[in-house]
Amino acid sequence: MALIVQKYGGTSVANPDRIANVANRVVKGWRQGNKMVVVLSAMAGETDRLIKLGRELADYPDPRELDVLMATGEQVTVALFSIYLKAQGIPATSLLSHQARIYTDRAYGKARIVGIDTARIREELKKGRIVTVAGFQGVDEVGDITTLGRGGSDTTAVAIAAALKADLCEIYTDVEGVYTTDPRICPKARKLDKISYDEMLEMASLGAKVLEIRSVGFAKRYGVPLCVRTSFNDHPGTLVMQEDKDMEDILVSGVTYSKNDARVTISQLPDRPGIASRIFNKIAEGNIVVDMIIQNTSQDGRADITFTVPKADLKNTLDIVQPLVAELGGGQITSDEHIAKVSIVGVGMRNNAGVAARMFSSLAAENINIMMISTSEIKVSCIIDEKYTELAVRTLHDAFHLEQARPRKELT
Amino acid sequence: MALIVQKYGGTSVANPDRIANVANRVVKGWRQGNKMVVVLSAMAGETDRLIKLGRELADYPDPRELDVLMATGEQVTVALFSIYLKAQGIPATSLLSHQARIYTDRAYGKARIVGIDTARIREELKKGRIVTVAGFQGVDEVGDITTLGRGGSDTTAVAIAAALKADLCEIYTDVEGVYTTDPRICPKARKLDKISYDEMLEMASLGAKVLEIRSVGFAKRYGVPLCVRTSFNDHPGTLVMQEDKDMEDILVSGVTYSKNDARVTISQLPDRPGIASRIFNKIAEGNIVVDMIIQNTSQDGRADITFTVPKADLKNTLDIVQPLVAELGGGQITSDEHIAKVSIVGVGMRNNAGVAARMFSSLAAENINIMMISTSEIKVSCIIDEKYTELAVRTLHDAFHLEQARPRKELT
Repeated sequence: MALIVQKYGGTSVANPDRIANVANRVVKGWRQGNKMVVVLSAMAGETDRLIKLGRELADYPDPRELDVLMATGEQVTVALFSIYLKAQGIPATSLLSHQARIYTDRAYGKARIVGIDTARIREELKKGRIVTVAGFQGVDEVGDITTLGRGGSDTTAVAIAAALKADLCEIYTDVEGVYTTDPRICPKARKLDKISYDEMLEMASLGAKVLEIRSVGFAKRYGVPLCVRTSFNDHPGTLVMQEDKDMEDILVSGVTYSKNDARVTISQLPDRPGIASRIFNKIAEGNIVVDMIIQNTSQDGRADITFTVPKADLKNTLDIVQPLVAELGGGQITSDEHIAKVSIVGVGMRNNAGVAARMFSSLAAENINIMMISTSEIKVSCIIDEKYTELAVRTLHDAFHLEQARPRKELT
Repeated sequence: MALIVQKYGGTSVANPDRIANVANRVVKGWRQGNKMVVVLSAMAGETDRLIKLGRELADYPDPRELDVLMATGEQVTVALFSIYLKAQGIPATSLLSHQARIYTDRAYGKARIVGIDTARIREELKKGRIVTVAGFQGVDEVGDITTLGRGGSDTTAVAIAAALKADLCEIYTDVEGVYTTDPRICPKARKLDKISYDEMLEMASLGAKVLEIRSVGFAKRYGVPLCVRTSFNDHPGTLVMQEDKDMEDILVSGVTYSKNDARVTISQLPDRPGIASRIFNKIAEGNIVVDMIIQNTSQDGRADITFTVPKADLKNTLDIVQPLVAELGGGQITSDEHIAKVSIVGVGMRNNAGVAARMFSSLAAENINIMMISTSEIKVSCIIDEKYTELAVRTLHDAFHLEQARPRKELT
C-alpha cells in the first residue's frame, strides 16, 4: 500500500469521456489499496477560452482578476471527476486551493508555492476517499486566488507529493515519457527508462516540453520520485530520480532544441569597463531574461556584443537598447529571429572531455554553422540557423548513439 | 453618500458587452460618492451548460460536487466584471464566498446562509474599491463550497445588505419592477411603485418570478429596503418595503398565477380519526410539499380528500399514496395535472370583507369553475382548470381595477 499523487493534464481530461477514463484508471490504483491524490488541469482548450473572454473586456486583464477567472478551469474538472467517481459508488472529494491549503506568494499569474498544510488532505485520505485537487492554483495569506503559470499543475502535484512524503508522483501527459529527443523530428528517438533530476532540469529549460521546470526543481529539492507517463495506455513511462551509477555511464541522455530565442548584436560599442553592465542592467530592468552572451574585442578599441532573448521580448529589447547605445556612442544594432538552440544533455559528460568537440564536429560535417555556444557541467548548447534545426537534432542523436539503450560511454 | 448593494441577474451579464454596460452603471453610483457592493449571477445559460456537463458523468450528480461545479459560473462573472473596471482605472476587487465569508449550512444545492463576517468587504470598501461578490454561493464551516439554489443571488445580495446595514439593496432583473400581474398575459398590467414585504412574499410564493422568496423573507426580517428594477434603462423600479398607510388603502395589489401544481383526489376513504394524518405524514416523509387540502365527508361514513402537490412530485406522490390507501381499505385515487392556481394579494383586504366574494363572482361571471380555495390574511387563491388561466388573470385584474394607480378602496 502506497501513497500516490497523480497529475493528469488537459488532453487527458479534455471531455467527459476522457475524464471518466482517467477516473477509472485512478480507481484501479485505489482498489489495489493505495491512497490516491489526483491533481487535475483544466480541460484542454478551457484556459484559452477563459483568457479570450477576459481579453474581450481588457487588452491587459488585471492579473489578480485573471487568476480568479482562470482558476475556474480546474475547478470544473475536479468537480466533474468527483461527480463521476461518486456516481460509481467510490468515496471521493474535490478540494480547491483554499481547502487543500496550498499557500503561495501574491505574484499573480506566476505565483510560487510557499507551503502546504496537508491536514485536510490527510483527513480525507484517512476516510478512504480519493482526493482530487485543482491544479495550477493556490491562495495567498488572505485567501485570494493565485495561479502558478502555464504547466503549474505539475508543480501542484509535486509540491503535494513532497508535503505528503508520497511514495510516487506520476505525471500523466500526452506523451509516453521522456524521450532522447522530439520523436516528431527524429524517428529514432527512444523513450528513456530513467533520467536524473539534473538532466531533466536542463532538458526542460532547453526546450523539452514534457515537464514544467519548476516541478522538476521541486522534485529534486525534496527527493520526490517522479514518473512521466501517458493516460492513453499502460506503458511504464520514464522515472525522474536521483542520479545513479547507471546514468553516469551514459555520456549523453538527450538532445533538445528550442526556437523561442532571438539574437541581438550590438557592434562597434566603445570597449571600456561598465558598458556591458549598463546594457544588461537596463534589459534586466525591463524584466527580460537574457540567455547567452558573447563579447568580442575588435582591433580599434571597439567591441561587439551578441546575446539572445526570448523572441516575444525582442521588440522590447530593441526599444531599450537603441537609445542606450546612442547615448553610449556606439554602433550598429542588428537582430535575427531565425535562429534555433540545439543542446545535448547528460550527467555522463561531467567526467568526459571531448563531448563538446564531437558535437561541433558532427554539426560541421553537415555544414551547419555554429553562431554561439554555451556550456554547463551537464549540457552544451549551440545557436544555429533555424532552418537546420531538424537536421542538427538528427545528426546529434546519431552522433551519440541515442537510439541504443546503453550506448558505450567511451568516445568512438 | 450611501452604502448600496446591487445585484445583477444572468441576462444583465449575459456577455462581455453587457458586463461592461452594467459595470458602467455601477461606476456612475460610485462616482456620486456611494460605497458600492455588487453581487453577480452567472452569465445567462452558463448554469445550464455546467449542469449538462455534470449530467454527462452522472444521472444524479453528487450534490457537493455539483455545487463546486456550479459555483464557477459566478466566479467567471465577478472576475470579468472586475477586469473591466480595473482596465478603466476604477479600483475594484472580486470576492468569492470564502473571501467574502458568506457562511452557510451544508445543505448542498439549497444551502441557507447562517452568517456573514463582513470584515473583508468593509476593508475593501474602506480602500475606496467597488466590491464584487459572487452570488448564489457560500462556504460551510470547513470552507467547502455550497450553493443557495436557483435565484440564490438575490438572497446573497439581501443578506450582504442586511449584514452591512446597507441603505438600499437594488435587484436588477430583466423586468422593470413588480407588476400588478404578468404583462405577457395581461396587457393592462401596471408596474407598482411600492409593495410591502408581506405582499411580495405572497406574490413570490404564488408564482410571481421577479424575486426569490427567501430573499424577500430576509429583507423583511432585517428591514432591508429592496428595489427591483432593470439594468436596461433608468426607470425607477419597484420599492419593496415596510407596509405604510398608502398600501393599506389599496384592496388588492396584484394577481398571480401558477401552473406548477397537480391535484390528487382520494375518494371513499374510511372516515375515521387519524386517516388524513397518516396520509400526509407519509407524503411529508417523501419530502413532498402539499399546498391546499380539502376534505368532504360523504353520507355513507366515507370521506373524499383532495390536495395539491408540485407537478414534479406527482408520480412520487401517487407511488406513496397507492399502497397506503389499499392498506387503509379506501377508495379510488384520481389525479389532474391540468390545473392552475390564480391568486389575489393585498394587505388592504385584511380589513375588508367582500374581497373573496368579489373574486368568486368575477370568475363565475366568466363561467370559470373553482375547484379549491385557500385564503390567508392577505391573499385568496383558487384552483381552476388550466385552460382558463389567462382569462381568469385578466378578469381579476379588471375586477379590482388594478390598471389604476390608486383604485378606490371601497368595493363598488
